[in-house]
Amino acid sequence: MLPRGRPRAMGAAALLLLLLLFGFLLFGGDLGCERRKQGGRAGAPGCFPGPLMLRVPPDGRLRRAAALDGDPGAGPGDHNRSDCGPPPPRPSKCELLHVAIVCAGHNSSRDVITLVKSMLFYRKNPLHLHLVTDAVARNILEMLFHTWMVPAVHVSFYNAEELKSQVSWIPNKHYSGLYGLMKLVLPSALPAELAHVIVLDTDVTFASDISELWALFAHFSDTQAIGLVENQSDWYLGNLWKNHRPWPALGRGFNTGVILLRLDRLRQAGWEQMWRLTARRELLTLPATSLADQDIFNAVIKEHPGLVQPLPCVWNVQLSDHTLAERCYSAASDLKVIHWNSPKKLQVKNKHVEFFRNFYLTFLEYDGNLLRRELFGCPSQPPPGAEQLQQALAQLDEEDPCFEFRQQQLTVHRVHVTFLPHEPPPPRPHDVTLVAQLSMDRLQMLEALCRHWPGPMSLALYLTDAEAQQFLRFIEASPVLAARQDVAYHVVYREGPLYPVNQLRNVALAQALTPYVFLSDIDFLPAYSLYDYLRASIEQLGLGSQRKAALVVPAFETLHYRFSFPHSKVELLALLDVGALYTFRYHEWPRGHAPTDYARWREAQAPYRVQWAADYEPYVVVPRDCPRYDPRFVGFGWNKVAHIVELDAQEYELLVLPEAFTIHLPHAPSLDISRFRSSPTYRDCLQALKDEFHQDLSRHHGAAALKYLPALQQPQSPARG
Amino acid sequence: MLPRGRPRAMGAAALLLLLLLFGFLLFGGDLGCERRKQGGRAGAPGCFPGPLMLRVPPDGRLRRAAALDGDPGAGPGDHNRSDCGPPPPRPSKCELLHVAIVCAGHNSSRDVITLVKSMLFYRKNPLHLHLVTDAVARNILEMLFHTWMVPAVHVSFYNAEELKSQVSWIPNKHYSGLYGLMKLVLPSALPAELAHVIVLDTDVTFASDISELWALFAHFSDTQAIGLVENQSDWYLGNLWKNHRPWPALGRGFNTGVILLRLDRLRQAGWEQMWRLTARRELLTLPATSLADQDIFNAVIKEHPGLVQPLPCVWNVQLSDHTLAERCYSAASDLKVIHWNSPKKLQVKNKHVEFFRNFYLTFLEYDGNLLRRELFGCPSQPPPGAEQLQQALAQLDEEDPCFEFRQQQLTVHRVHVTFLPHEPPPPRPHDVTLVAQLSMDRLQMLEALCRHWPGPMSLALYLTDAEAQQFLRFIEASPVLAARQDVAYHVVYREGPLYPVNQLRNVALAQALTPYVFLSDIDFLPAYSLYDYLRASIEQLGLGSQRKAALVVPAFETLHYRFSFPHSKVELLALLDVGALYTFRYHEWPRGHAPTDYARWREAQAPYRVQWAADYEPYVVVPRDCPRYDPRFVGFGWNKVAHIVELDAQEYELLVLPEAFTIHLPHAPSLDISRFRSSPTYRDCLQALKDEFHQDLSRHHGAAALKYLPALQQPQSPARG
Repeated sequence: MLPRGRPRAMGAAALLLLLLLFGFLLFGGDLGCERRKQGGRAGAPGCFPGPLMLRVPPDGRLRRAAALDGDPGAGPGDHNRSDCGPPPPRPSKCELLHVAIVCAGHNSSRDVITLVKSMLFYRKNPLHLHLVTDAVARNILEMLFHTWMVPAVHVSFYNAEELKSQVSWIPNKHYSGLYGLMKLVLPSALPAELAHVIVLDTDVTFASDISELWALFAHFSDTQAIGLVENQSDWYLGNLWKNHRPWPALGRGFNTGVILLRLDRLRQAGWEQMWRLTARRELLTLPATSLADQDIFNAVIKEHPGLVQPLPCVWNVQLSDHTLAERCYSAASDLKVIHWNSPKKLQVKNKHVEFFRNFYLTFLEYDGNLLRRELFGCPSQPPPGAEQLQQALAQLDEEDPCFEFRQQQLTVHRVHVTFLPHEPPPPRPHDVTLVAQLSMDRLQMLEALCRHWPGPMSLALYLTDAEAQQFLRFIEASPVLAARQDVAYHVVYREGPLYPVNQLRNVALAQALTPYVFLSDIDFLPAYSLYDYLRASIEQLGLGSQRKAALVVPAFETLHYRFSFPHSKVELLALLDVGALYTFRYHEWPRGHAPTDYARWREAQAPYRVQWAADYEPYVVVPRDCPRYDPRFVGFGWNKVAHIVELDAQEYELLVLPEAFTIHLPHAPSLDISRFRSSPTYRDCLQALKDEFHQDLSRHHGAAALKYLPALQQPQSPARG
Repeated sequence: MLPRGRPRAMGAAALLLLLLLFGFLLFGGDLGCERRKQGGRAGAPGCFPGPLMLRVPPDGRLRRAAALDGDPGAGPGDHNRSDCGPPPPRPSKCELLHVAIVCAGHNSSRDVITLVKSMLFYRKNPLHLHLVTDAVARNILEMLFHTWMVPAVHVSFYNAEELKSQVSWIPNKHYSGLYGLMKLVLPSALPAELAHVIVLDTDVTFASDISELWALFAHFSDTQAIGLVENQSDWYLGNLWKNHRPWPALGRGFNTGVILLRLDRLRQAGWEQMWRLTARRELLTLPATSLADQDIFNAVIKEHPGLVQPLPCVWNVQLSDHTLAERCYSAASDLKVIHWNSPKKLQVKNKHVEFFRNFYLTFLEYDGNLLRRELFGCPSQPPPGAEQLQQALAQLDEEDPCFEFRQQQLTVHRVHVTFLPHEPPPPRPHDVTLVAQLSMDRLQMLEALCRHWPGPMSLALYLTDAEAQQFLRFIEASPVLAARQDVAYHVVYREGPLYPVNQLRNVALAQALTPYVFLSDIDFLPAYSLYDYLRASIEQLGLGSQRKAALVVPAFETLHYRFSFPHSKVELLALLDVGALYTFRYHEWPRGHAPTDYARWREAQAPYRVQWAADYEPYVVVPRDCPRYDPRFVGFGWNKVAHIVELDAQEYELLVLPEAFTIHLPHAPSLDISRFRSSPTYRDCLQALKDEFHQDLSRHHGAAALKYLPALQQPQSPARG
């Protein structure tokens, strides 16, 4: 064994010097050029280097990595280093790059999206994402990528639950839990034909084109299989505190937040046995892993140093509390990947954290719609549905006065369901979810709504990416909201000038998990007792099972902000009598709720049936499998009315509940309403939508649809709100 | 003279072939490598290429540029091309790069900011911007850069008015007008010691690091002085239509949206005489320039082809209606600079415009605050005030419960004054500007406000970069708002969790251009007659000149959205009597306006004096040089009260105007108020701010400030709105 410490360091330095000298004598000044010629895949003949050979050679960074490796212990695989080597060939223009990420739960799903945004921003190649997910993350990410429709991005999912048993025997103290260990089983979990993959932690951010990272595979010697950046802390050197006993590692060890994996070689080398053997042996003397997979990777590498190809430090700039990363980034002029590897994430203490945080915020708040960019010159299978969508959009006439409406109807909005942690309610046979939609200007309603409705809610929020972050902070700052795990928030990302009210309602409705839904609007506060009362009524009336009905919740309004909410029907009637409350839209649009028959409701002791009439738009409770809202109604007008028409056409009984009520609070008119009021075109377009709605209604319901024709043809009051 | 057309083209092709062959024989395969060694500025010896030599070599792109030049007429300066050349050295890590831009007017100023954002996003070098501006652009950009505080960005301004006479003799039909021609005079207008500069049109967007462009200076031969990309249309080939006679150019000519200028060489070569001679001669037969400076640059280059170094096409991807740019970008995998050189800008028809538009929108909507990133390893003079700010921020205690308040107070918000075209009102001795501030959720108020106030307004808007674009579209869509040139909108960019209400008021106040200001709030609509009445009252009372007074405009409120605005005091009193109107905050906080003495106002025929009392916060008209608002009050509470205290302390008389009134319209509570209501900490912090305010008041006014002590110490009702 070599002596430890300084003499060993000197030995390594001497070896390095020798290698350098050897390289210089052997290749002179020509190495770069020679190799460049050889490396060209599609270059012109002779002196003309192909474009592929000349793209962003990373040598400079490799040299910087070597500088960081000044610690002699950190020089594993130095004999395999190609510091003097040529720029590796960049992947060819349309080469498909593979990326694997393990992701579980709501919060990690948000992180992955930010990571993917940064990757897509700089990428110039088609990508195949291999996502190892739990059920929650899969539900979120599948919908997200489906609606994101990014060209030249393919996504495959792998069930993390099925892999758990392969790692659950390892005691682990790291905050990433079991999922942190799953990177170890990727060689067997990913498809056998997949030979190269970049593996990323969810907490990394790209600051460069991932193809530059992929290009580093070309640096691997014939036996290397794992590319890693040195760990930028003294953790593995041990003795950070009394009894600190890290897992074995070469010098500072390596960080596994960014890994280049030659899956083919690992499979050949018997990786599955290799890491298990090492882990079992170390666990004889160590109680558990502290840093999950990273401890095991390092222990294996210590045993088999020939496996590892060290990567330049800029490809994994680690921002933990006591990071040594500054040595790396202050010398480099280019950072490639930032790794938030402190459990404190963006709250980590670091004198340059503001710089890195700004970088991260760039992608956190970046409008993901802008990443739906094609790759010029790389023909690729368009995402599912994208082609039809393109055709439909291309057929629109830009001169049509209703062009904006048509375009908005066709827009596929990116959807991020359960944006925040959410515990679905335990299944109960008569449970009801309150369903509503909102944008930023109605966030103030949420606390009051939570106080009035103790049951589950499914809310669609129409937000930009930046607003989604504001929303997150708003929830975190509110003890009332942060405590409610049964409220599911689904972010629908903004796109286009008109509010897609019915698309939003449909997102919230589709995500409701109880057998019944209360279809409400965000400006309404339900009676405190409504949740309990509805469940009792559903049971009593046999809603859904015996009876196909929609239960009507009578709607009222107050014109005052400060107002003492009635605790009973008696109190409500008293307020109504003194003019402190009105029936909803009493002054502006009584037709909308007239069929509810407030006079009868006043006296009613039992549910009573009412008949549909033109413009009726009550708030109703229906089984979850009720008809969807018609997404053609965007902006303002007729969106709920059409839904009630559809319910009536499908022969839902309309039953008014005698003790139910909900009260509308005042708010400033929305921008859409202002626009409606001032624009005759807007009203003409709405009429055109109504005509088309009726044509579809006739197609589905035949002569029965005739009943609705007069209602659809009468002009709508512009004063409606 | 050579025969025109095909034979000439064949001759050029043969020449090109010969040159290529010659190059190959002479330099063989070694040229790249040899030149690379020569090009290194700070590399390691021997085989080790310095990092600077190996960064993003653009050879591939040069070849692509050559491909675009397939048209033989388009081969100007081919003998100077270095298609076979080496990657040029990147500028050293901290080398200062110089950029010149000509910018005039409100709209171009917005464009420049987007361009600068894209440049800053990718840059890794210190920059010096040389801005040739008219008075409007200078006013906007000076304030913007001053408040932006981007490290390692220096800005110099040059007065475009002074340069006008040098180009105004040239008849020009291009939409850029006189300013389009000013690029011609940069060699004399910029400092004599400045040798290299990149000149950019305002309508370009960067998609890469500008240092890569700067690096192309290294390609210049000893005599070349102007680097340009070929014009990507057939314009200069002529015959696009009957009688289309373009200015002379080499082949397709060059586009001057992106220019590398060797100012030193141009000065030496007698550029000033050179371009004038050429222009004068061409103008003997041509009536005017069609494409401004570009026509003249091309005519000069046609005469002196040795001056030009053709640049790779990706450095100026031109998106005009009939662009040939696709040839360039579909072959390249990397676009560097996008140029919106159609007068239609983003509305240009082009099958890939969506791609480019998304790219542009990225920076249009990008949060400019995130670009306040330091350059690691490049020590630079911090922007003015930045150091003190850093120190003050560093001294804050993160554990202080009022930390957010302290931080918000210290925040320097980016300010973009006169975001939209604005015509200052003609100077009139008693004119009044309405001053207010708002955020997105109050945009709906603007139309009504314009109807009620026909005079000048100065409004501060608290917006994100993305919201500023929504705001722009909102204004453009409103005929009422688009028609008003006397309303100045000043965008203050959002940063931090608390609404900086008084900082916003101060921005709007500082930008008011009339001798008097009406300090209002955005939720108020003034009496229709108020603007005329105030001007008459100011004149009658001798406000400002004879009398140091604040004129009080009594405030009322309606609780209804739909409400018929009174046309006179008589009508207002009638509404008050039937309970359709109230005095402002009558129910929640009568103290705020009680001293106005509404009973007296009812009967008053002449202005009357009232005394300050605790919590008084009337809306007042004062001379423009009145005290500023105290910026320590952020979020909600005490912001106007403190201002009235200051006016009283400075012995302004408070005079109530008998015919003046303004009415508050209802709105949902702002997020800040919701937060105030639910947080005891918020109220405690407000009390702390009040205490500090009083300490300052005592410092300035001595014992006179004692009068305000009880008012400052009483707890404020949490119900205030």
